[in-house]
Amino acid sequence: MALVIAGGRVVTAADDFIADVLVDGERIAMIGANLSDRADSVIDATGAYVLPGGVDPHTHIEGGFVHTPVRDDFTSGTVAAVCGGTTTVVNFCPQAQGQPFSDLLSEWHRRLGASPPVADVGFHVSVVDLSVGGLAELVAAGVPSFKLFMAYKGRMMVDDETLFATMQIAAGCGALVMVHAENGGAIEVLIGEALARGDTSPIWHSRTRPPELEGEATARAIDLARLAGCPLYVVHVSCCEALEPVVRGRTAGWEVWAETCTQYLFTDESMLERPDFEGAKFVFTPPPRTEVDRRRLWDALAAGTLSVVSTDHVPYAWDEHKTLSRNDFSKIPNGAPGIEDRLAMLHHFGVGERRISLGKLVALTATQPAKLFGLYPKKGTVAVGGDADLVVFDPSATRTISAAMQRSKSDYNLYEGTSVTGAPRDVLVRGQLVVRDGELIAEPGVGTFLPRAPFAPSRHGGAVGGAPEQ
Amino acid sequence: MALVIAGGRVVTAADDFIADVLVDGERIAMIGANLSDRADSVIDATGAYVLPGGVDPHTHIEGGFVHTPVRDDFTSGTVAAVCGGTTTVVNFCPQAQGQPFSDLLSEWHRRLGASPPVADVGFHVSVVDLSVGGLAELVAAGVPSFKLFMAYKGRMMVDDETLFATMQIAAGCGALVMVHAENGGAIEVLIGEALARGDTSPIWHSRTRPPELEGEATARAIDLARLAGCPLYVVHVSCCEALEPVVRGRTAGWEVWAETCTQYLFTDESMLERPDFEGAKFVFTPPPRTEVDRRRLWDALAAGTLSVVSTDHVPYAWDEHKTLSRNDFSKIPNGAPGIEDRLAMLHHFGVGERRISLGKLVALTATQPAKLFGLYPKKGTVAVGGDADLVVFDPSATRTISAAMQRSKSDYNLYEGTSVTGAPRDVLVRGQLVVRDGELIAEPGVGTFLPRAPFAPSRHGGAVGGAPEQ
Amino acid sequence: MALVIAGGRVVTAADDFIADVLVDGERIAMIGANLSDRADSVIDATGAYVLPGGVDPHTHIEGGFVHTPVRDDFTSGTVAAVCGGTTTVVNFCPQAQGQPFSDLLSEWHRRLGASPPVADVGFHVSVVDLSVGGLAELVAAGVPSFKLFMAYKGRMMVDDETLFATMQIAAGCGALVMVHAENGGAIEVLIGEALARGDTSPIWHSRTRPPELEGEATARAIDLARLAGCPLYVVHVSCCEALEPVVRGRTAGWEVWAETCTQYLFTDESMLERPDFEGAKFVFTPPPRTEVDRRRLWDALAAGTLSVVSTDHVPYAWDEHKTLSRNDFSKIPNGAPGIEDRLAMLHHFGVGERRISLGKLVALTATQPAKLFGLYPKKGTVAVGGDADLVVFDPSATRTISAAMQRSKSDYNLYEGTSVTGAPRDVLVRGQLVVRDGELIAEPGVGTFLPRAPFAPSRHGGAVGGAPEQ
Amino acid sequence: MALVIAGGRVVTAADDFIADVLVDGERIAMIGANLSDRADSVIDATGAYVLPGGVDPHTHIEGGFVHTPVRDDFTSGTVAAVCGGTTTVVNFCPQAQGQPFSDLLSEWHRRLGASPPVADVGFHVSVVDLSVGGLAELVAAGVPSFKLFMAYKGRMMVDDETLFATMQIAAGCGALVMVHAENGGAIEVLIGEALARGDTSPIWHSRTRPPELEGEATARAIDLARLAGCPLYVVHVSCCEALEPVVRGRTAGWEVWAETCTQYLFTDESMLERPDFEGAKFVFTPPPRTEVDRRRLWDALAAGTLSVVSTDHVPYAWDEHKTLSRNDFSKIPNGAPGIEDRLAMLHHFGVGERRISLGKLVALTATQPAKLFGLYPKKGTVAVGGDADLVVFDPSATRTISAAMQRSKSDYNLYEGTSVTGAPRDVLVRGQLVVRDGELIAEPGVGTFLPRAPFAPSRHGGAVGGAPEQ
Repeated sequence: MALVIAGGRVVTAADDFIADVLVDGERIAMIGANLSDRADSVIDATGAYVLPGGVDPHTHIEGGFVHTPVRDDFTSGTVAAVCGGTTTVVNFCPQAQGQPFSDLLSEWHRRLGASPPVADVGFHVSVVDLSVGGLAELVAAGVPSFKLFMAYKGRMMVDDETLFATMQIAAGCGALVMVHAENGGAIEVLIGEALARGDTSPIWHSRTRPPELEGEATARAIDLARLAGCPLYVVHVSCCEALEPVVRGRTAGWEVWAETCTQYLFTDESMLERPDFEGAKFVFTPPPRTEVDRRRLWDALAAGTLSVVSTDHVPYAWDEHKTLSRNDFSKIPNGAPGIEDRLAMLHHFGVGERRISLGKLVALTATQPAKLFGLYPKKGTVAVGGDADLVVFDPSATRTISAAMQRSKSDYNLYEGTSVTGAPRDVLVRGQLVVRDGELIAEPGVGTFLPRAPFAPSRHGGAVGGAPEQ
Repeated sequence: MALVIAGGRVVTAADDFIADVLVDGERIAMIGANLSDRADSVIDATGAYVLPGGVDPHTHIEGGFVHTPVRDDFTSGTVAAVCGGTTTVVNFCPQAQGQPFSDLLSEWHRRLGASPPVADVGFHVSVVDLSVGGLAELVAAGVPSFKLFMAYKGRMMVDDETLFATMQIAAGCGALVMVHAENGGAIEVLIGEALARGDTSPIWHSRTRPPELEGEATARAIDLARLAGCPLYVVHVSCCEALEPVVRGRTAGWEVWAETCTQYLFTDESMLERPDFEGAKFVFTPPPRTEVDRRRLWDALAAGTLSVVSTDHVPYAWDEHKTLSRNDFSKIPNGAPGIEDRLAMLHHFGVGERRISLGKLVALTATQPAKLFGLYPKKGTVAVGGDADLVVFDPSATRTISAAMQRSKSDYNLYEGTSVTGAPRDVLVRGQLVVRDGELIAEPGVGTFLPRAPFAPSRHGGAVGGAPEQ
Repeated sequence: MALVIAGGRVVTAADDFIADVLVDGERIAMIGANLSDRADSVIDATGAYVLPGGVDPHTHIEGGFVHTPVRDDFTSGTVAAVCGGTTTVVNFCPQAQGQPFSDLLSEWHRRLGASPPVADVGFHVSVVDLSVGGLAELVAAGVPSFKLFMAYKGRMMVDDETLFATMQIAAGCGALVMVHAENGGAIEVLIGEALARGDTSPIWHSRTRPPELEGEATARAIDLARLAGCPLYVVHVSCCEALEPVVRGRTAGWEVWAETCTQYLFTDESMLERPDFEGAKFVFTPPPRTEVDRRRLWDALAAGTLSVVSTDHVPYAWDEHKTLSRNDFSKIPNGAPGIEDRLAMLHHFGVGERRISLGKLVALTATQPAKLFGLYPKKGTVAVGGDADLVVFDPSATRTISAAMQRSKSDYNLYEGTSVTGAPRDVLVRGQLVVRDGELIAEPGVGTFLPRAPFAPSRHGGAVGGAPEQ
Repeated sequence: MALVIAGGRVVTAADDFIADVLVDGERIAMIGANLSDRADSVIDATGAYVLPGGVDPHTHIEGGFVHTPVRDDFTSGTVAAVCGGTTTVVNFCPQAQGQPFSDLLSEWHRRLGASPPVADVGFHVSVVDLSVGGLAELVAAGVPSFKLFMAYKGRMMVDDETLFATMQIAAGCGALVMVHAENGGAIEVLIGEALARGDTSPIWHSRTRPPELEGEATARAIDLARLAGCPLYVVHVSCCEALEPVVRGRTAGWEVWAETCTQYLFTDESMLERPDFEGAKFVFTPPPRTEVDRRRLWDALAAGTLSVVSTDHVPYAWDEHKTLSRNDFSKIPNGAPGIEDRLAMLHHFGVGERRISLGKLVALTATQPAKLFGLYPKKGTVAVGGDADLVVFDPSATRTISAAMQRSKSDYNLYEGTSVTGAPRDVLVRGQLVVRDGELIAEPGVGTFLPRAPFAPSRHGGAVGGAPEQ
């Protein structure tokens, strides 16, 4: 069964050329001119881009911060993903206090089994309790990334002793440490004061989580990781204050990487003040910041300070979740959907407005996350031997983003009403066409659990494949 | 006439996979498994790397700083290049005071015609006199890069008015400005004082060119370029003091790139004190620095602060040039040969000692210079449609570097006696095998003049090809 | 009762002139030429310096970190102080968990009453538990400075919530927050690992408290204080890593000040490895660092990055305290005596070796701490109307520092055997001669509790007196 | 002849107290309570401040950049000075090409003799031509400060060779190097382009002198001075871009100081666009900048990044000078009057609005410039033995600044119409009352030439007097 994607503009993190791509089974077998004669079927990609399927390393499908299932299960969440051009997600599995890590993994394998995905799915664990032991064993189980929260005191937050001890473990077993970097202790004080004053509306979500506290925690995580000798990945950087320590660390040659998420490039604090409690839609964490921060985030993507754009997809629903508590901003569930819009938004406003190149778009949404999270060279590029996760992207298609049209079961969209040019047209997951002309055509189960390789030292030059460059 | 390079490990700036590469005429036609049946001839690359041919954007073939021909003409210089794995050089053409730029180009086309190369050759111009007009016209002639010297007062040095005016012209016509960044005025004072004191030995070359003066000029060039709105490329960064302003500029999102050269990674100031005037071999500019600087240069390569490693190949001869003036360091011709050893040295000490990955090696020596200097996508990568400039690199071959064995007509080598593992085995220039099993097999004339495209804005996302990412 | 100090070189933070100083009762009444005729007695200070009495804002007399009385009570501790040229100490009063602040103050007033001092004494409180309330009330009780420990987990360490909440309180009531900045959580991990490995000797005190963790905590405290809007004073800065955030904060115009202590200018990590467990003498926290750090600390004093040199005097005894636990570095009581040697060491090695000027010496040891801690204009300078706390310092006296000769009841000295030129000759506390020709002549009780004024905003230009400049 | 200033609030850079000041002849003889009985006359200063007379180290009396005498001669210029609370000026003496330095000094001594001053006057030389030799000899002649212009190409500008060579001379002879830091070469290009486009109005003065070019030159001067080992003083810092390298240099411990001028704290770029060519009044160099720069300059004064506020007094006249060339901004003479308003403006808007303390005001306008320029301890403070240059400042006097009321012969005022509270009431120069109740009462000739001491290394702790602290 051979398929040829013919005549498209193939774009990788480094290259950009017109060619046919021959898919044989699950893999890319050949790239070259005039391969159609070798194919059982041909997808004409003339005038389109042929991109590697997106890798979204930051999703909370079946999650939510408090273990209450959100709207998307793995099936609906990955349907949204593939329709948006993302063929691999790495999802968070939050440990409960006292829960053995093996139990945690079993639970999530069960969940994944219960709602078969259409994209491939990997797992990160969110660590809250090291005392159960067994964390390092997760690497062999294909889960080489440990996330810790420096915020959400009394819930997910760990203290520096646990954070640092986890970093030491990660340094020894080949795992990447991920941090949600905000100073949860100080935020607790600010929230308490705000509520005591009667400041309860959504804007106070932002005002009680000032950028200084994200900058502080980012710097702290970098210092601790450097000392522990473990590689660090800072999730959802939102502001200048957090970019600064990332720049300092990276230019000093330390193994630190950071991502931002789509929403931090397009939303700002003022949206939290939208009337009729609409502001609650923008209650995610860190909160949306300012126009200045947005500009600096774009600069940081271009300059290589930030290595990834993820979505932090949390598919809450407006009625079921976001509006549950209208008189206490601190009770509004934190998070927003977004898995479906990353590629289109970045293409239109990033590439289209010349903030980043097409190759950089691929690097940020596919190649870099694949390399950082042990998925490369199977995922994240268009290269011979790699998984045929491919997106035929029509750069001239236009559409208007709306919750009504989205596949995620969340019922609102942060970019509602935004017109974009450029859309995924056809999407393949390991050689199988899951989206055709923008329509889902696959049955659940095309995707599968994806064990990931240990973190490869960034300057490693050994075997074929796998080294994320700083 | 189709050729297949079979079974090698293909490495690009982003990718790394085992495949056959089919070369049809001058271009790469196909990459995939089992392509040998399509070939007229096959090169077995099993166990070897298949790398893009190197691009060396900083050579002084037929040059020297004072227009006295050095040892290598274009034939011998490019023979050395291809044997070292470099298939494209961009060479400096220094303007004389009052010389029209069109005359300058004609002169160098004539020189190239007189000694036909075996690698492709592009030209930069070194600007000393803007009053002749016509600089912008060079872009259309395929020469979109203008170099200026901030040192060598009384010879090549321009003042800030000429420097800034050139930057303004470059901003308008799509050229990249290159600077030799040292404060030539202060150096003049230091040299005068040293000679007046009777300090005439080679070590004073270094002591009269302290790193502070390289740092200062680098910062100045970056500030001026930012203001002029032109892209800037700082050549031969040698020290921490110069890295600092590059980091500041790049992380601020300005269009500034910088290179170091092989020699700054392997030599240090103490070598200038070698007995029997041997120190004179290490008289190049900027001078060799310290162990700390070397470590920081490697870090800067890994971190992306530096984008290119070039050679600044100046093929002086020991007897004819370097030893002409044994009692005045300031009269020792500045420069050293090196075009032949870049790939092997970086592979052995960079990849082999895990300072950089193999993909980074390719990026630094091929892809990044190709993109920055308007050669991509023809040059600098292994991709369908690109020129079949390819290096089959044997990672296990061992040899000892020595002047006696080198192809450059220079008669000494900075790395004399260094044992390295890994060597170019077979080299193709536009599909033609020029080196087989390490031996030159091509006649002069395989190479040709290479007109280059204008500088593409770094965040450009338009047509196929060409945008250097910051 | 009028006394004249005649003919000395009067040195203040700003000025330096020859004059007589007339003391009338407890105050300085007049400064000028030929005042001897107005005096009942005259001290001839010809050839000597007349300095303001030193202010040491960091002592642990009657303290120790664990409430076990150390060797010095207020009498012996202040005898040591005045003999060393320090006429005011501000001592720490550590709160116990659950202890009301008013009880804490009462306890320490009782202690002070039980061992009457010969220097004036102020109190800081060390906060561990905010839940008892009443912290802000201490300002009215003359105690406007609150210290928090970011280290010593399980003992004095507070979490960021308590730290930040204290900062908010301080911002509201005119108190200065002081922090011991080390990341106690990470240190806990490192200590546990070291002990588990059997690494128990004193050098591991230093190796488990790396400078990165001091730098991290310093940056964190500065970020939190900036957000809380409170002035911050970082105690005992020991290393480059901690200087960096202080520089960033101060040059950004934030209200942050920092001190180092005498010992960080003269000891280094290697001393922890002295044989026969002598290394234990150098177990204080932060630990001694490196020669590079020492050089940068001197630079920081000269440049104004550091505003104060204190002593962190902890008068442990060798037999009773430091050698209690020879097989577990983590049980060696942290701290060392030093109150007596600050002025002589800084004069000899600072002024004498031209690292700082005499005026800077006065600023660092008297004027700046007086201004920062609400003691100015009574203390810290030689000016009309101020308390006649004066030191006649003989710049040519020589002596060798030794524990055998010291007045502190501690039985060892960090600078044992060091020869210094320059010594306090005569010392006055509020007009009363307490040291004459280097000998103590006062009875206990000359000194008294010193209520201090609230922290004055640094740019305040109002009433006479008191504003610390940044 | 003894005079007592009774009951005032005496303010120095370090101290602040109520006392009488006894003046005996030219010197301060005594400071204390109740000195009136010793006096022949008494000035009641109750409720007033007693400040050291201001030192203005940056004036162009009898100067102008092109040797055409401006409106003020030394008599009128110093009358303006003393009425504004400034009792010492250090004025620039610009060398002409080829002019021996001894001739230059003679010329200026002659000028000073021809228009006797009422304040004391020192000289700086502005160096353009080192070839005449003899620069170092100026130190012995009481002129230990050499200024160089990095701008005004073709007029005062020196190249880096001359700049650096001067720095080397200064390092050897105890002189302070002062720089006007703007990149004159790049400015030349920008001016040429603007005029070629027909952009001739005053706003283009600012647009052709962007802050980046001030930042660049400042960094360059600091790097060169550091290398030469000479102390550096950057005049008229106007913008954030120039503050950055000053911060870097100072916190690294290098001997660099910088001033701003009153006008940079109160004017901004928009004023250059005032109608009816009024914008020309704001044509001084560097040009006025933005509100952000102003805020950062105030921060830098408070933080100690800037050490002095001077005036750069250039007493051009509106009709005679500023309006000579209405159709070419580049021909408008650069400079503005201001010697008279420094103290009042800084008191009202600095101290009054709590940007700086009163002690800082004294430090910035008197003590620091006195120490930096070899005038301390004679000038710059209120201390026994020092010159009785004193200002009785009435903090509650109110007035409206206007050219009509000023003593300078310039006929406009940058602060026209500004109401300020606080004014010099009585002013003494070396014990002689020159201003009483705000009215000039002295005859020309009270002031005299003031030879200055060599620059003292900043960490010097030797003889009485003289060391500027960093």
